Amino acid sequence: MNPIKPYTLGIDLGGTNIKGGVFGPGLSLVIRHSIPTEAQQGFDHVFLRLQRWIDEAITAAGIQRAGVACVGIGAPGPMSHAAGVIYHAPNLPGWENIPLRDRLAEATGLPVTLENDANAAAFGEFAVGAGKDVESVVMLTLGTGVGGGVILDGQLWRGAYDNAGEIGHTIVVPNGRPCPCGQHGCLERYASANAVGERLREAIEAGADSVLAGAVRDGQTPTSIDVENAAEAGDALAQRIWDETCFYLAVACVNLQHTLNPQRIVLAGGLINAGDALLNRTRDHFRSTSWQIAQDHPEIVFATLGTDAGTIGAAALAQREIGSA
Amino acid sequence: MNPIKPYTLGIDLGGTNIKGGVFGPGLSLVIRHSIPTEAQQGFDHVFLRLQRWIDEAITAAGIQRAGVACVGIGAPGPMSHAAGVIYHAPNLPGWENIPLRDRLAEATGLPVTLENDANAAAFGEFAVGAGKDVESVVMLTLGTGVGGGVILDGQLWRGAYDNAGEIGHTIVVPNGRPCPCGQHGCLERYASANAVGERLREAIEAGADSVLAGAVRDGQTPTSIDVENAAEAGDALAQRIWDETCFYLAVACVNLQHTLNPQRIVLAGGLINAGDALLNRTRDHFRSTSWQIAQDHPEIVFATLGTDAGTIGAAALAQREIGSA
Repeated sequence: MNPIKPYTLGIDLGGTNIKGGVFGPGLSLVIRHSIPTEAQQGFDHVFLRLQRWIDEAITAAGIQRAGVACVGIGAPGPMSHAAGVIYHAPNLPGWENIPLRDRLAEATGLPVTLENDANAAAFGEFAVGAGKDVESVVMLTLGTGVGGGVILDGQLWRGAYDNAGEIGHTIVVPNGRPCPCGQHGCLERYASANAVGERLREAIEAGADSVLAGAVRDGQTPTSIDVENAAEAGDALAQRIWDETCFYLAVACVNLQHTLNPQRIVLAGGLINAGDALLNRTRDHFRSTSWQIAQDHPEIVFATLGTDAGTIGAAALAQREIGSA
Repeated sequence: MNPIKPYTLGIDLGGTNIKGGVFGPGLSLVIRHSIPTEAQQGFDHVFLRLQRWIDEAITAAGIQRAGVACVGIGAPGPMSHAAGVIYHAPNLPGWENIPLRDRLAEATGLPVTLENDANAAAFGEFAVGAGKDVESVVMLTLGTGVGGGVILDGQLWRGAYDNAGEIGHTIVVPNGRPCPCGQHGCLERYASANAVGERLREAIEAGADSVLAGAVRDGQTPTSIDVENAAEAGDALAQRIWDETCFYLAVACVNLQHTLNPQRIVLAGGLINAGDALLNRTRDHFRSTSWQIAQDHPEIVFATLGTDAGTIGAAALAQREIGSA
């Protein structure tokens, strides 16, 4: 720890909110802070909002600006970590080829690092969450889509083109369901929280029966929790969809096992709200799907940091790169 | 380079032959040497054969034993690189929990390192072959099975349990063809040289017609080259089998792209004797199967070192670990 600059800011730049925290020694949380992104007003406005978040967070934490060692930002979209440039951010209109790291450093006088938000979340779980006692971790965030991050031997692996860890777009069903990314059969189209409800809706539209058929006929898409509840209650279609979700997730875990051989695979995101119904079934499918000829099975566990993972990870990575706490 | 000890020995310990080379500065090949393993005679005999190989290779190279910096051994089977122990070697009867590294070092007076043979081959291509000008490479050896090796940022990634890079056992067809490893749908069951002929034979046995049907009825399994030749000659079944082979290989490459984001994927092994019929079709499938939303496609290329890759890589890894040349 740098005793002169003991604080690090971790920011998650989202399409809806700019949120994050002020972290002290050992990544201890001092305060959380969140403001609306107001993304529709374009880059210049959001850039000012980022500066405002920093000013407000420092004030709210009751610390001095001179006590801040660095700022870590996790952001969506293709980017270059090395160059500190966001190439494109789907949820931030007008953000094209933005050298965010250097511009924000210049505007604030603070050292800044830029990371992919999924990588930041994975590193947060590795640093102080579900992976804190191991060295090699892959995280899968099962939310609207499926994000991923890869930590090998204590280091975030970003890939040659800053695009490693896109596990959601590994193909688990050749020629399978179309994905907005242009591929077919991506894990994301089976094991994201959204995909679970969509697959059930499509099955009902194709003629299958379910206790959720009425809701679908009313134009609703069931949530993953709706599907899990219906499965628990004995609905055969929901049981099949839920079981397939866990199976495809297990296939992805097998592929990670054989490719990277990590100690732990950490599951995060909205889908893990299903609890044991997700974890136990996925572990069962993993055991029956993976080989038994070598003792190299990763543990499959749930994340522990919730939505703080990304901001903690952004702060931790900034500390690693710039120094301090 | 250590001017006092400029030489490194690289050995590939196979079930049939102990082969390898003496390498000088810059991994330049001084001589190759090969002797039968005589594996059926058990561990003690093979251990003496290894020492004999070393003695003969030093003599054949016309160098002094004192000029040898280290010995790198690539061997099959589950092992611990860190402990230098072979747990089990399917093609070497009696090799169970053998601390080969330390025993051979003691017997020869030379520093020894032990690597998985597929990892050694991948590192050889990275060091001086098809990956020598990039930093992140995945190699797939398409032979009897499908071996793999992963080099990230210039470092061999062995995995938490020394089992990373087993790309041949990533699943490309959920619930697909059974694999001796116990899984279903492994890449190895579609894109190994052996699997190509087996799939054609099975299709004929199931009633499909082909110019190769007569050979199959005579009890033969076509080779991958037979299938490729028949495909070239217009045989529809062979064309389908060959095309599917390249497609599943492309799916594995897409999954490597999104998981590891390497600069290059190097294909090796007997299947690459098909030349452009393999490379171009695989590249075509890769382009049409992978996303287009990010410029992060790895190049797919052929290996350049042939069967020397493993011994060069074993020597290169020994140099890295122990020092010298």
